[in-house]
Amino acid sequence: METEVRGWTLEELAELLEAELVGRGDVFVTHAAPAGHGTPDALTFAGSAKHLAAAEDSAVGAVIVSPDVESSSKPLLRVSDPRRTFGKFLNLCIRPLPLQHGVHPSAVVDPRAHVSPTASIGPFAVVERGAFIDDDCRVHAFCYVGEGCRLDRGAMLYPHVVLYQDVHIGERSIIHSGSIIGADGFGYIWDGERHAKVPQIGGVTIGPDVEIGSLTAVDRATVGMTKIGAGVKLDNLVQVAHNVEIGEHTVLASQTGLGGSSTIGRNVAMGGQSGVGDHTVVADGVMMAGRAGSPSSIPAPGVYAGFPAQPLMDFHRQQVIIRKLPELNKRLRELERRLAELEKKEL
Amino acid sequence: METEVRGWTLEELAELLEAELVGRGDVFVTHAAPAGHGTPDALTFAGSAKHLAAAEDSAVGAVIVSPDVESSSKPLLRVSDPRRTFGKFLNLCIRPLPLQHGVHPSAVVDPRAHVSPTASIGPFAVVERGAFIDDDCRVHAFCYVGEGCRLDRGAMLYPHVVLYQDVHIGERSIIHSGSIIGADGFGYIWDGERHAKVPQIGGVTIGPDVEIGSLTAVDRATVGMTKIGAGVKLDNLVQVAHNVEIGEHTVLASQTGLGGSSTIGRNVAMGGQSGVGDHTVVADGVMMAGRAGSPSSIPAPGVYAGFPAQPLMDFHRQQVIIRKLPELNKRLRELERRLAELEKKEL
Amino acid sequence: METEVRGWTLEELAELLEAELVGRGDVFVTHAAPAGHGTPDALTFAGSAKHLAAAEDSAVGAVIVSPDVESSSKPLLRVSDPRRTFGKFLNLCIRPLPLQHGVHPSAVVDPRAHVSPTASIGPFAVVERGAFIDDDCRVHAFCYVGEGCRLDRGAMLYPHVVLYQDVHIGERSIIHSGSIIGADGFGYIWDGERHAKVPQIGGVTIGPDVEIGSLTAVDRATVGMTKIGAGVKLDNLVQVAHNVEIGEHTVLASQTGLGGSSTIGRNVAMGGQSGVGDHTVVADGVMMAGRAGSPSSIPAPGVYAGFPAQPLMDFHRQQVIIRKLPELNKRLRELERRLAELEKKEL
Repeated sequence: METEVRGWTLEELAELLEAELVGRGDVFVTHAAPAGHGTPDALTFAGSAKHLAAAEDSAVGAVIVSPDVESSSKPLLRVSDPRRTFGKFLNLCIRPLPLQHGVHPSAVVDPRAHVSPTASIGPFAVVERGAFIDDDCRVHAFCYVGEGCRLDRGAMLYPHVVLYQDVHIGERSIIHSGSIIGADGFGYIWDGERHAKVPQIGGVTIGPDVEIGSLTAVDRATVGMTKIGAGVKLDNLVQVAHNVEIGEHTVLASQTGLGGSSTIGRNVAMGGQSGVGDHTVVADGVMMAGRAGSPSSIPAPGVYAGFPAQPLMDFHRQQVIIRKLPELNKRLRELERRLAELEKKEL
Repeated sequence: METEVRGWTLEELAELLEAELVGRGDVFVTHAAPAGHGTPDALTFAGSAKHLAAAEDSAVGAVIVSPDVESSSKPLLRVSDPRRTFGKFLNLCIRPLPLQHGVHPSAVVDPRAHVSPTASIGPFAVVERGAFIDDDCRVHAFCYVGEGCRLDRGAMLYPHVVLYQDVHIGERSIIHSGSIIGADGFGYIWDGERHAKVPQIGGVTIGPDVEIGSLTAVDRATVGMTKIGAGVKLDNLVQVAHNVEIGEHTVLASQTGLGGSSTIGRNVAMGGQSGVGDHTVVADGVMMAGRAGSPSSIPAPGVYAGFPAQPLMDFHRQQVIIRKLPELNKRLRELERRLAELEKKEL
Repeated sequence: METEVRGWTLEELAELLEAELVGRGDVFVTHAAPAGHGTPDALTFAGSAKHLAAAEDSAVGAVIVSPDVESSSKPLLRVSDPRRTFGKFLNLCIRPLPLQHGVHPSAVVDPRAHVSPTASIGPFAVVERGAFIDDDCRVHAFCYVGEGCRLDRGAMLYPHVVLYQDVHIGERSIIHSGSIIGADGFGYIWDGERHAKVPQIGGVTIGPDVEIGSLTAVDRATVGMTKIGAGVKLDNLVQVAHNVEIGEHTVLASQTGLGGSSTIGRNVAMGGQSGVGDHTVVADGVMMAGRAGSPSSIPAPGVYAGFPAQPLMDFHRQQVIIRKLPELNKRLRELERRLAELEKKEL
């Protein structure tokens, strides 16, 4: 039940973070705390006098501050940029999920699969024939790496990821739990009596440095490849239909949906619960607000909102008036009354 | 292939449900049927003469009725409140998913984890170092209980639940299949060339008596804790981003999304496919209709609808006029015509 | 690491596809390529002279063309309907996910379950007591087939599917990875202090020839059955609440949500991110556009859009005017000004 306690003395941290220590160097911290919170084994940071006062009022063990702070009731680590140094400390605090080296004895790896000796395969993972898992990859428990899939160097699958077939994951890319990559696209043809299935035989290509959240679905192409460019970030519960192409460094927030064969440009950002229709093309650099939905293509960069999506400023202007519609209706009725009166006089 | 048939004679049920039996006591029922349906081995209830007639026309085995029903072609169980007694019978009908006592021999439990001798761990479950599973917990097949996670007494994980790291599940709380708790929040900083990952090192705290549906994602905090209060109920396919806080007894229907660092009050109810933006604050007692979406905070209780969400009555009033907009436009054109005519005369 | 290379010579394909071969018959192709793309081991099709030119410019190995094409720099397969023949070739290209015959030695099958000798059960699958798996079913890795579930002949569960209890899957139906069928419906009664759980003891009945995408949730009925009719197709990330009934051949695109006890007719089509509220009834043949949301029933067939959903033509007409609202407002103000002037003169 006991695990080794991981942590650092402030003395150690002063050296690791290139900070000046003020106060007791033997204080031992094990994790980071948000500003104004924290227990005696936590380290936080204060970017202002107000935040420092909040930290001093809390039980936190020590505080990262700027050089102008001279003293405090808490031990201090003084640095030129406290926020940045706190970020460095966060990086120190990352604990990768446990995973033994090599292939866990319970995993089922087809002898016709290649697994690098420096890769790690967790308990109950299944790796099918023709799969290729390169150096330093981490494949966690319950993952299914299907036939002909390829994980490039340093790729990571968290527990419970499924790669159907012919899915290529780029270097250092990360797929979170529950995401399903390469399932059949949603394609049918009505044959007069029933929806006949269009064969789905393509694959999925995911570039390097991509991160895909939990419970996201990326369907295989009907023919060819569904493509996700380098550096793309997808949040949780996102839908990427068959034959979609997503340009480099594009970011899609949670519950976003991309229709079949849509093409999303580079450096696009789509807010939560947004979406685009089948066969749409979204230009490089487009930003869609949360909930924005576009049934048609968006050919020019800019910020878009609402449904059907339109330029944000237009959306706001309309919303202002929509909220006044009952009043507008009254003004119109009043005009009609006054005009009728005037017309009567005129006769 | 045969399983023991579970069920009760009407005589047994009369005693268990404190009902008065009218008719044959040896009729054997195994399950509940909705009103007007059912096979001879089912029990239903009738709250009215009409429902009793429907039950008598069906093949159902027996009917729970109120004391004023004197006789019927079906055996009866007479009680003061038929609906309430039917509810009690439904409780009798619950069959927990099968799970042997103790740790299934196929499970992989780290020796540095604590599993209570009264807890049950299903086939192929993985329990990592430093995890703590208290008395009477039920962890079903394929669950991943990560490092430093804690399940309080009587907590239940259905098959295929993932808890990443530092996830705390309160007493009697239930997590349904496919839900992922504690995956990384969606945090990046554009460094001029790419989206650099903000380390996600916080955890998730879930209070007692919480129920979380299938395929729901609850992300860990960046630093600190994502918090779900006591008695909260989340439906399927819900998104709870990093650092969200949800107050006690709040209820979120399916496909709802909460943006990062949003704070949802107590006794809030959000309808299906609703959502709120990042860093919003939603007051205690707010009700959001299905599809309501609020990019900004909702500081006062009330019922809200539409996007951007506004008071329900305002939404309805606007919708009425929006539907008349083509007519309004015509009236406006007509006014312009008439006014122009009048102005001409005036000259 | 090497897998047997699957493929066909053009000579073989000419026979299989009943085509006339023009050019070298020993060219070996292994897969299909979209028009204008492809490597020397791929076959594509060209429906027009333009597409043929694109194919000739690509590295593709061979092209299916119509009889009027006389020659080309590529080997050709001449047929009366190139698109249809390409479809036949796609069917040849389907590679079912690998699955050994019989029960994988790592699977946990309760002795009281029935598994047909012609069914396949993958690694780490769990089959509970009273489950019935008929001939030719394919149950992939990590599936959980709960107590009393039944898979009819030829049904297929991709890796990571969960069937809770009393779930019936019809003949030839396909469930994709990560879908959860039969979890508890979202039913609570506020008892003055907390949301008390309404027991959820019903099941799910899924007809024949149904296909359900990835990460879709279909909840069990409170009492009775949640019902999905023959030939229904559900995309990824769809929510089907407790006691829903879906008529035959209805198609729901990704991220659609159906509220509890809603009844969806036959041959209904709902676009991505659409939804209907609890207890609604949607008529046979209704089409809802992407994003359409209906809190109330839709009693007549037709095409509906927007929220709250209304006939598509009405929606379009209103959208046109909504976009002109700022202009409308100006026109109204102008009218008020002119009318006031006229009234002044009148005095």
